[in-house]
Amino acid sequence: MRRIRIRVAYDGTDFHGWQVQPGLPTIQGVIEQVVGGIEGRDVAVAASGRTDAGVHALAQTAAFSLDNPIPVDNLRKAMNRLLPYSIRILSVEEAAESFHPRYDAVAKTYEYRIWREEICPPFERRYVHHHPYPLDEDAMARCARLLEGEHDFSAFAAADEKDRLGLSKVRRIFSSSVERSGGRLTYRVRGSGFLKHMVRNLVGVLVEAGKGNVGEDGVRERLRPGCAVPCGPTAPAQGLFLISVEY
Amino acid sequence: MRRIRIRVAYDGTDFHGWQVQPGLPTIQGVIEQVVGGIEGRDVAVAASGRTDAGVHALAQTAAFSLDNPIPVDNLRKAMNRLLPYSIRILSVEEAAESFHPRYDAVAKTYEYRIWREEICPPFERRYVHHHPYPLDEDAMARCARLLEGEHDFSAFAAADEKDRLGLSKVRRIFSSSVERSGGRLTYRVRGSGFLKHMVRNLVGVLVEAGKGNVGEDGVRERLRPGCAVPCGPTAPAQGLFLISVEY
Repeated sequence: MRRIRIRVAYDGTDFHGWQVQPGLPTIQGVIEQVVGGIEGRDVAVAASGRTDAGVHALAQTAAFSLDNPIPVDNLRKAMNRLLPYSIRILSVEEAAESFHPRYDAVAKTYEYRIWREEICPPFERRYVHHHPYPLDEDAMARCARLLEGEHDFSAFAAADEKDRLGLSKVRRIFSSSVERSGGRLTYRVRGSGFLKHMVRNLVGVLVEAGKGNVGEDGVRERLRPGCAVPCGPTAPAQGLFLISVEY
Repeated sequence: MRRIRIRVAYDGTDFHGWQVQPGLPTIQGVIEQVVGGIEGRDVAVAASGRTDAGVHALAQTAAFSLDNPIPVDNLRKAMNRLLPYSIRILSVEEAAESFHPRYDAVAKTYEYRIWREEICPPFERRYVHHHPYPLDEDAMARCARLLEGEHDFSAFAAADEKDRLGLSKVRRIFSSSVERSGGRLTYRVRGSGFLKHMVRNLVGVLVEAGKGNVGEDGVRERLRPGCAVPCGPTAPAQGLFLISVEY
């Protein structure tokens, strides 16, 4: 058996997230169908992590095992021919037999895009969260920096993950910053790993900071182990991009 | 009656062009419905020119007449609230009673975007023509320059316009250039006016020039009055953007 590692870009708009769900279009489901067709049997495709419904990827990493001896360049071309244009295979390469895109990942980078002007260009509408209301972007940038370092992110986990005791919620954030470019405000975060909904919850708190509802102390409080303060609203999925996964 | 002038951006993907067509979604149709709802009677909305099915606009100009005294800022907000996110009103202002977006236009700028790399990013797929095959882009740039000046563009008119004798096919092109940026090759053309399908036919010939099928002499030949040489394939609509209209 060969182990194949792929990098995948996708527009999450029309999918119910990465993970297979019976009867619903998902990115994993569509890719498994295409790889299964090439291999002639069911093939499981694992990713570096699930992305939620509506979340996009500039470069997700995934892997699967094949018996088919098709050269990697041909496999990339065949997959792109069979996949919808909303999912593109950027690269295909041979990997170590033991390679696992989730367990072997050492860092991931996400971007969250907020459109700040009154009018959201039609061409951006699927790829940003439109928030044209006042925000103190300097306060957001200061709070974003506070997230760097190793912290217990329990307060930023999805509700259904909060109850899963025993699993560590400690993660290391290597960089966390906010940048304005034209009408677009981008939050960029690179870390060792992320809990379910964590990036969207970080953005939720940063937006609350921008509104003046949460200060730097409020952010620090939410980073204390076992914090029970509700994290603030989860930012909408469509502004979130998985940018890259490092190994 | 007030004369209202608007600038409109739209993603043409899901529309059958600007012009009203019974039973089909068109940009004019949707805007007339919204303005008619605000005015309480049918209102005709005129544009600087029709765009074909699938063609986009960064800033189309249109105009209509209203009795409703609603302030222009409120009208912009009301229209954007009622329109789909694929159509955005960028500005609304009072205009001279005689203003006509088509007859008063003195220049228009179009852009045509070709994606040159093997893989077209999912986020670009609706807004480019994907052509990853070899093209001599320098030859295309040289031929693009030849189009500048005043010429008879009969060879570049749509088939159904070629037969309309008596109407001048002479237009002035102020600038015509090709530029590469990352994976995107952009043809940008600014002119006094354009015949139906003219920009897409210009791009069709430039692509033929890039393939080596048409040389500079071939382009000059097509610019001779009454040229009967077929202009080459019409480039697909989805790569075309109306950038701006000048008055």
